[in-house]
Amino acid sequence: MKKVGILGGGQLGRMLLQEAANFPVDTWVMENDPNCPAAHLCQHFVLGDIRNYDDVYRFGKQVDALTIEIESVNIEALEQLEREGLNIIPRPAALRIIQDKIEQKAFYQQHQLPTASFVVVQNRAAVNDLVSFLPAAMKLGKGGYDGKGVQLLESAADIDKAFDAPSVLEKKVDIEKELAILVAVNQKGQTAIYPPVEMVFDPYLNLLDYQIAPADIQQKILWRVEAIALTLAKALQSPGLFAVELFLDRNGDVLVNETAPRVHNSGHHTIEAQVCSQYEMLWRILLDLPLGNTTGLHPSCLVNLIGEPGQSGPVAYEGLAEVLNMEAVYIHLYGKAETKPGRKMGHVTILGKDRVDLVYKANIVKRTLKVIAQS
Amino acid sequence: MKKVGILGGGQLGRMLLQEAANFPVDTWVMENDPNCPAAHLCQHFVLGDIRNYDDVYRFGKQVDALTIEIESVNIEALEQLEREGLNIIPRPAALRIIQDKIEQKAFYQQHQLPTASFVVVQNRAAVNDLVSFLPAAMKLGKGGYDGKGVQLLESAADIDKAFDAPSVLEKKVDIEKELAILVAVNQKGQTAIYPPVEMVFDPYLNLLDYQIAPADIQQKILWRVEAIALTLAKALQSPGLFAVELFLDRNGDVLVNETAPRVHNSGHHTIEAQVCSQYEMLWRILLDLPLGNTTGLHPSCLVNLIGEPGQSGPVAYEGLAEVLNMEAVYIHLYGKAETKPGRKMGHVTILGKDRVDLVYKANIVKRTLKVIAQS
Repeated sequence: MKKVGILGGGQLGRMLLQEAANFPVDTWVMENDPNCPAAHLCQHFVLGDIRNYDDVYRFGKQVDALTIEIESVNIEALEQLEREGLNIIPRPAALRIIQDKIEQKAFYQQHQLPTASFVVVQNRAAVNDLVSFLPAAMKLGKGGYDGKGVQLLESAADIDKAFDAPSVLEKKVDIEKELAILVAVNQKGQTAIYPPVEMVFDPYLNLLDYQIAPADIQQKILWRVEAIALTLAKALQSPGLFAVELFLDRNGDVLVNETAPRVHNSGHHTIEAQVCSQYEMLWRILLDLPLGNTTGLHPSCLVNLIGEPGQSGPVAYEGLAEVLNMEAVYIHLYGKAETKPGRKMGHVTILGKDRVDLVYKANIVKRTLKVIAQS
Repeated sequence: MKKVGILGGGQLGRMLLQEAANFPVDTWVMENDPNCPAAHLCQHFVLGDIRNYDDVYRFGKQVDALTIEIESVNIEALEQLEREGLNIIPRPAALRIIQDKIEQKAFYQQHQLPTASFVVVQNRAAVNDLVSFLPAAMKLGKGGYDGKGVQLLESAADIDKAFDAPSVLEKKVDIEKELAILVAVNQKGQTAIYPPVEMVFDPYLNLLDYQIAPADIQQKILWRVEAIALTLAKALQSPGLFAVELFLDRNGDVLVNETAPRVHNSGHHTIEAQVCSQYEMLWRILLDLPLGNTTGLHPSCLVNLIGEPGQSGPVAYEGLAEVLNMEAVYIHLYGKAETKPGRKMGHVTILGKDRVDLVYKANIVKRTLKVIAQS
């Protein structure tokens, strides 16, 4: 049985492992927390730091193929393992491009992929010379994820909030809709594309509020989104599953925001709403089996369960029974022992007949189900 | 977090644990094989014999609630644990009725549940006096499962194949269809019922060949099946998930064949075909959460993957890629290292638009995907 290692043991690893049990695969996970969400669902859990060269290298030598569930891994170790013949999906070269927002933006430019105009800055002081470029989103080159590492600078008054490290300063987009689309690329270079989804963000936490699938967009916008996502995935020259986040602006232009080279929050709904979920799809790619069917079975809405403000400590879920009384509502709790404000603790997928039905139910779920600390 | 123990670590435990990861539950499994299908998917694996009093008792003292994934467990230990206050689902008293085919038949009779006429025999010699009762199915009182412990006796010539132990001799039914139906009973005594399924058996291995859901039966037959299943589940006076297997005979009568007080092979399709799968349903019952929605989303067909005749040893799956190239086909492999003839190694669920489509695809899957020994 093929040994496949996953770097990272968070909720994406957890959901990958729930699906792995259907396939002929021996699963390995490395994470530095023995109580992480994925730890107890793999065949072999290895305690180690995914950012440490030696830990990643040693882990890679134990498996036949390697994937990631988070980008912040030691790439030098992956590059060495690849030179020694290990099958790494996504390829370290693709990961290197994506891991650094500066390289990621340069890559879009190089491949004529439309993206918001930007300037690369080395530190906070450099932003002072770019006041006329504001309002802009400042994105930390390395280390940002999950809404962290992004700062909106509306005007000169915000410059004290700017990052003091190499970053991308990206012209603020006049957003009509935020979209995301998943592209699967197998080891032969064949592709499969999922229907795009539409996201609504919480302006305070900069975290996904809820998500509707499929996105309500015109056919010509759909074609642009698909064409951009496919061009992007092919240009990365790597097998894997890629989540491309895009903006549709008020001029009707589609711009790439950013890409993740892995299963993604924007694809959680595919567990219930698609023939082949993003998790199953990645196993098919890793095991060199045929790509799955990305057809949607039902319209869906995804609500993230985020730790409530002011609540820290051992977790409790308020309103769980009420939500489980609703029709066609699926809970996915990530098994994290502690909640804190803004932490992703789970998600709920709702299947429904149309958008009105879904938004109505999503609001009930959001009002009812709260992630709090045990009193 | 509530600690829930599962006695048994086979494929039913495996699928329960895949679903458990969505719920707030700390999972415990006891089985005497550290490489069993469920061993690596729980938080706490305990090596022990589910038939041994001390092992079951000790395991039960570590958890807040207990369930089973196979009937052959030590009931005396469960009864003692229940007296000491442990929440056991299904109740040991219900399990005691079901564990012994003789008591099970008496229970049907006592509750006016229609079932094939039968005689209880203590040994093989006793069958000699019952030649006029043949043809009959002889069912071993204790220890039979998965087609084992059932012997068809067509005539006096077959008596040498009879079991030499307490058994039920059940008049052969002139079967029109074999049906199965799942009933969920929560801790408050509320019930939810799944649409019945229709089974086609392999006459040689006496194992399920394929199964279609929902069953193609007249409305009045559906009502009878539902009424029988609900009466039966309520008479057991226990929360839990119950799989009731029934015969529809050529006179249009519905007869109870047997009952399993747990998730069941006949409910595997609910993972993809129902809003709430049988696995999710049992977690809802165990955690005292509302019952789920049993509505069917798609017609489905279930094909069991059985070890091919003449093939024993480390397992290989022939034709896996071809089957994964089909539309809306889901594989579930049970992670068993060794195959042997007739062993249940996995299943495939097919979603389709109607019965013709499903049977066509089921036959392709059966011809294509073979469980063999590695050469």
